[in-house]
Amino acid sequence: MTKHDKKPRMSLKPISVVNSMSYEDFISLFGNVIEHCSLCAAAVWRDRPFSDVNSLHKSFCQFTDQLPIGGKEGILRLHPDLAGRLAMSGGLTNESTKEQQSAGLNTLTDQEKKTMHHLNQQYKQKFGFPFVICARENKKEAILTGLERRLNNSGETEAVTGVEEVKKICRLRLLDIVDSSSKL
Amino acid sequence: MTKHDKKPRMSLKPISVVNSMSYEDFISLFGNVIEHCSLCAAAVWRDRPFSDVNSLHKSFCQFTDQLPIGGKEGILRLHPDLAGRLAMSGGLTNESTKEQQSAGLNTLTDQEKKTMHHLNQQYKQKFGFPFVICARENKKEAILTGLERRLNNSGETEAVTGVEEVKKICRLRLLDIVDSSSKL
Repeated sequence: MTKHDKKPRMSLKPISVVNSMSYEDFISLFGNVIEHCSLCAAAVWRDRPFSDVNSLHKSFCQFTDQLPIGGKEGILRLHPDLAGRLAMSGGLTNESTKEQQSAGLNTLTDQEKKTMHHLNQQYKQKFGFPFVICARENKKEAILTGLERRLNNSGETEAVTGVEEVKKICRLRLLDIVDSSSKL
Repeated sequence: MTKHDKKPRMSLKPISVVNSMSYEDFISLFGNVIEHCSLCAAAVWRDRPFSDVNSLHKSFCQFTDQLPIGGKEGILRLHPDLAGRLAMSGGLTNESTKEQQSAGLNTLTDQEKKTMHHLNQQYKQKFGFPFVICARENKKEAILTGLERRLNNSGETEAVTGVEEVKKICRLRLLDIVDSSSKL
């Protein structure tokens, strides 16, 4: 499957519908725009009304920026390894499955799989959280070289870099849910 | 089932075992000591080594205290209504099911159910998050009167009060997992 085969799972919601949601419905809809981190959606609900999808995304970004360093690292720790055990066993969230496929991570050669696994382990050993990159904005070759390069950074740099990637992933996931042309 | 029927689901872990866990195993074990909020466990892992279960609990408390107000409210929004729809349909987490039972919330009369539902709705309408109380430290009568009384508070007071209850729940859930006599 390539990204061009992607079919919308549901019709895009106008921002007015988003703004009128109960917190239960909001968390249910946006609970995974930051992977496995429904607290972000649960917090962001308070910022309604949103003027558009950009203002919704901004609220998610502000919430992650306000987290103490442990919380930023925590967000990264809730992410799966790229092309890792969960991907092999079909245990990823739907969102992650599609994103990793769009980067071609499901078509790694055996050698690439070994390299990816080895670099992922080194990265987690050094930083205490997994390597996170916006897979929809990168191809597998760029991901492998990025992983190797980012291994040289400090922990502080990587926590910040990782969370910036999380924000990009969040934006693309929001655009899969909310009609970006709708305004308050 | 009363609280006296409670059987340990697993042997209690010494703190040394907790301290040696990978973040994946740690999150898997402690991911629900704050209901549906695995980010807390993912953040707290960074504070190892813990000297005992009290120091582990302290880390969870510090993380919740450092959250901006939206995050504190978000933690509450991830909690189910007491004796609510999820409890009726068997959709609660194992932890919540046992806690609500220990307070006798599974033995409400029809009139008590109606009152509880009505007060829960009023509370959520006023504050934008659900009423949270440590069910294992209260009986249904105290919960109903507490809910009625706390409805008069301000939103700020209730966010703080709710999070203090979350910390009590967290402590009891930790004591169900970690051997409290074990020290570093």
